Amino acid sequence: MPKDKDKGAALKNPKGTRDWSGSDVDLLEDIFAQISRVIRKHAGKKLDSPVFELQEVLKGKYGEDSKLIYDLADQGGELLSLRYDLTVPFARWLAMNPNVKSYKRFAIGKVYRRDQPAIAKGRMREFYQCDIDFAGASDPMIADSEVIAIIVDVFESLGWQDRYTIKINDRRILDGLFEVCGVPTDKIRAISSAVDKLDKLPWSEVKKEMVETKGLEESVADKIQTYVTRKGGKDLLSSLQADEALLANPKAKSGVEEMALLFSYLEAWGALDKVSFDLSLARGLDYYTGIIYEVVTEGSAPVMASRHPADSVNGIINPSSTTQTTQKQSKKESKKSSTADDDEDRSSDPSVGVGSVAAGGRYDNLVERFRPGADVPCVGVSFGVDRIFSITKARLAAGETFSFITSSSPDVYVMAFGGGGFSGMTAQRIGITKLLLDAGLKVEFTYKKKPKPQVQFKAAETAGAPLCVILGEDEQMKGEVRVKEMGLPDGHPEKEGVLVKIDNLAEEVVRRVEMKRVVGTTEGLNIAEDGRNPDTSRPATLES
Amino acid sequence: MPKDKDKGAALKNPKGTRDWSGSDVDLLEDIFAQISRVIRKHAGKKLDSPVFELQEVLKGKYGEDSKLIYDLADQGGELLSLRYDLTVPFARWLAMNPNVKSYKRFAIGKVYRRDQPAIAKGRMREFYQCDIDFAGASDPMIADSEVIAIIVDVFESLGWQDRYTIKINDRRILDGLFEVCGVPTDKIRAISSAVDKLDKLPWSEVKKEMVETKGLEESVADKIQTYVTRKGGKDLLSSLQADEALLANPKAKSGVEEMALLFSYLEAWGALDKVSFDLSLARGLDYYTGIIYEVVTEGSAPVMASRHPADSVNGIINPSSTTQTTQKQSKKESKKSSTADDDEDRSSDPSVGVGSVAAGGRYDNLVERFRPGADVPCVGVSFGVDRIFSITKARLAAGETFSFITSSSPDVYVMAFGGGGFSGMTAQRIGITKLLLDAGLKVEFTYKKKPKPQVQFKAAETAGAPLCVILGEDEQMKGEVRVKEMGLPDGHPEKEGVLVKIDNLAEEVVRRVEMKRVVGTTEGLNIAEDGRNPDTSRPATLES
Repeated sequence: MPKDKDKGAALKNPKGTRDWSGSDVDLLEDIFAQISRVIRKHAGKKLDSPVFELQEVLKGKYGEDSKLIYDLADQGGELLSLRYDLTVPFARWLAMNPNVKSYKRFAIGKVYRRDQPAIAKGRMREFYQCDIDFAGASDPMIADSEVIAIIVDVFESLGWQDRYTIKINDRRILDGLFEVCGVPTDKIRAISSAVDKLDKLPWSEVKKEMVETKGLEESVADKIQTYVTRKGGKDLLSSLQADEALLANPKAKSGVEEMALLFSYLEAWGALDKVSFDLSLARGLDYYTGIIYEVVTEGSAPVMASRHPADSVNGIINPSSTTQTTQKQSKKESKKSSTADDDEDRSSDPSVGVGSVAAGGRYDNLVERFRPGADVPCVGVSFGVDRIFSITKARLAAGETFSFITSSSPDVYVMAFGGGGFSGMTAQRIGITKLLLDAGLKVEFTYKKKPKPQVQFKAAETAGAPLCVILGEDEQMKGEVRVKEMGLPDGHPEKEGVLVKIDNLAEEVVRRVEMKRVVGTTEGLNIAEDGRNPDTSRPATLES
Repeated sequence: MPKDKDKGAALKNPKGTRDWSGSDVDLLEDIFAQISRVIRKHAGKKLDSPVFELQEVLKGKYGEDSKLIYDLADQGGELLSLRYDLTVPFARWLAMNPNVKSYKRFAIGKVYRRDQPAIAKGRMREFYQCDIDFAGASDPMIADSEVIAIIVDVFESLGWQDRYTIKINDRRILDGLFEVCGVPTDKIRAISSAVDKLDKLPWSEVKKEMVETKGLEESVADKIQTYVTRKGGKDLLSSLQADEALLANPKAKSGVEEMALLFSYLEAWGALDKVSFDLSLARGLDYYTGIIYEVVTEGSAPVMASRHPADSVNGIINPSSTTQTTQKQSKKESKKSSTADDDEDRSSDPSVGVGSVAAGGRYDNLVERFRPGADVPCVGVSFGVDRIFSITKARLAAGETFSFITSSSPDVYVMAFGGGGFSGMTAQRIGITKLLLDAGLKVEFTYKKKPKPQVQFKAAETAGAPLCVILGEDEQMKGEVRVKEMGLPDGHPEKEGVLVKIDNLAEEVVRRVEMKRVVGTTEGLNIAEDGRNPDTSRPATLES
């Protein structure tokens, strides 16, 4: 976006944020509409919470990432922070409303993290999340399986067929296998976070961290290796089901049993082939209690990071938590210096990937942290809409088309032409505009008292209107106007438009707009190809 | 909303904010959808700006209301504040993008004011605004007239026929008449703000403020009275057009001439009868340069405030700026004490009205304040969606119906029944759910492995599903399921449902859902009457 250099600092939006305008916001809205449509089919109900929360509400929920929380200034009254995600506000709401026993919560909202931005990759300080969470009782893995079915439904409807993988694991299996391998209880979270780096680092480095930094016995680390470097599907599940040492651990046993149940439900959803059971997936947040998942795609991972042979999952190189690690490291490195470096956009840094495009899991105890004794188990997923946007935009730029993208152009442009003493017919243009609006059409006209024909044609082209209605004083006398398709070639029988009685105008224009829409659809969606306004690129000579 | 008392302060949302859930958020979304539909017909294009801005951007834009701005804590880096409205961020964006010569900006977003809340009346600290602004050149009053047409279109489509008035005035007329009456230039804004109180105070008190507090000569005040106590339509316009003393002032002259033009355009839009030309309307914000307007309805004004005989406009008692004044006064009064009183909800205070439900005007110089020399004239309106919500909700509670309100219930509920050794058929229920989802239907089922029939019926009723599909092991063997309408009376031929082949199921359910929708529409929208879920109130005995 061009910035005015004269004014300096004040003429900008805050770092790590962006204004969404033009074709970008149209695409973003189309993505929202598509995700909303899917989630509403699955009976999701909106819940909209304030953009800030009491500081106490957020406190202690995000581990070391709490330092990324934006606080509001103390201006008297309550101490507030901007929300960090949409999950904690949902748990706070459930705790406040003990009468709500179940809620299929659907939320779209911006969240805030004082993190290093990489705007072109959709890594922002202010960014959208779109969440679906099922709160309330579910027998094992039934609600969980529907969340995964929603993930599949969303990415399929966004046109990502075969280009995403849902990595799944279960906290109980992970914790159980650490216990079985002999990890001391107080080291389990630390070892878990080391394992989470396996998508970025080779095993030798992860092992080094475990043994040298975290003081784990080498033999224990070697046992861990036999598990966490494995990923797959039913094959991996079967081998765990036959692993007596592992199943002797009650946590691992219930995790493995329920994973088998989940597999059977995912099969019924037709979703099993989208899933990769990955024993190295650990996820950062403390509050997960069961299944966890993370959706990755090409572009999720940084370009530089593929060093580990086990990185390739169904042809997708390198998943997302990579970048989280990179980020944390470089944050630590730059901490000593000023905050200026933290603010730099890192879009061109090849060590920064887009990250995961959706992630979530089961969190059965979070509500209880707000209301002791509360029993409101939850499972959900958060879609990273800015990242989905960035990837879709790059694919559009590469010439791909997407059927969910709609046109934002007006249906019809109202004009008036006249000779020497021409009045401009402003009131009449307004009257015809109103008539067409009342028929449900999207209509524009030029805000000039006496606009020239070429000015009006140019405006109609720029706006992408497929049709125009042309008023003239002579036709007006006869109760007629001219209806014309934009962009007809010379010699076309309707090149000069057709005369239509004003009494029949709305009906005739609606008919032609619907015809155009059908043709547009069968023509293979070139609307999408050039970024929404198919008519802007037409040579102006056709009209003037 | 019930609050847990054990946990105390932390288990709440911040004061002056609310969580939108259940039927409230459904209604809010329906209102958004309706306003969006209208604005998109008028070719509005979305623009979404960050929730915070650099403090410099907001500085000096809101006069004395600047003290209501929320600042973010200084955590290093930029100094930020939450946005106070959607207008200044738009002007900042236009200034940053000199290549954008025109934009029909449509925005829905929350804005923030550290003000005294009255939540039930839709007066919040965090509240939604929905704006449409036309940036770019327009010959006099053409774009302005379309903004007013949009206001009419929005309120008509929300079912407010004959229950709102658009008060209009023009800053140039107002400033011109002050000059003609002899108000010294340096007193014009102060006198203007005194006049703005005429909808709340009798003339005698406004005059007293002018003369005693603001030092205006009494004879000047008396001259002002002859203008600012007048409101009406073409009659008032005609009398101003014949007022030679007034027209001798160039500002007033151009204001009156353009008002005549506006009237002719509003007539073409069919909007003239919704408008009241009101010479006392001044509006608080400094940045308006031409036409200004404010939409009021019953409920806009506080109950207590009707003391002035000129208060009644088209049967609507007392417009909105009343409450702004009340608010400012009580704020000043409570300033000495702690902020605790400021935080109290004032919903039950009869001196607090809902306020105006939409307001705006022309602001031709705001962009220039960010980029000297910029010439981007703008005109727009902001809809107070929370207030529109509060009023609509009260009308629903009073038994009114609104055609724009949609059902949020699932189309169909999938169940399974069985005898003693019944498996619960979970995978089969999932399979049928998936089949129906793929047909575009909104589907739910119970997250229990072996749910009892009455549990499933109750859940379907609570969700408001009009249809259910019932699986049974015997029927399954024959490739059949049972389709049943919910709530059929005893003795109805389809009371027990009808058997349908699974191969034909999607088609049959879609057919029945569409039939139900048509019936629902012709039955006169009782969906709206009891707050969205028509089926919840049905006696459970019908099913169990």
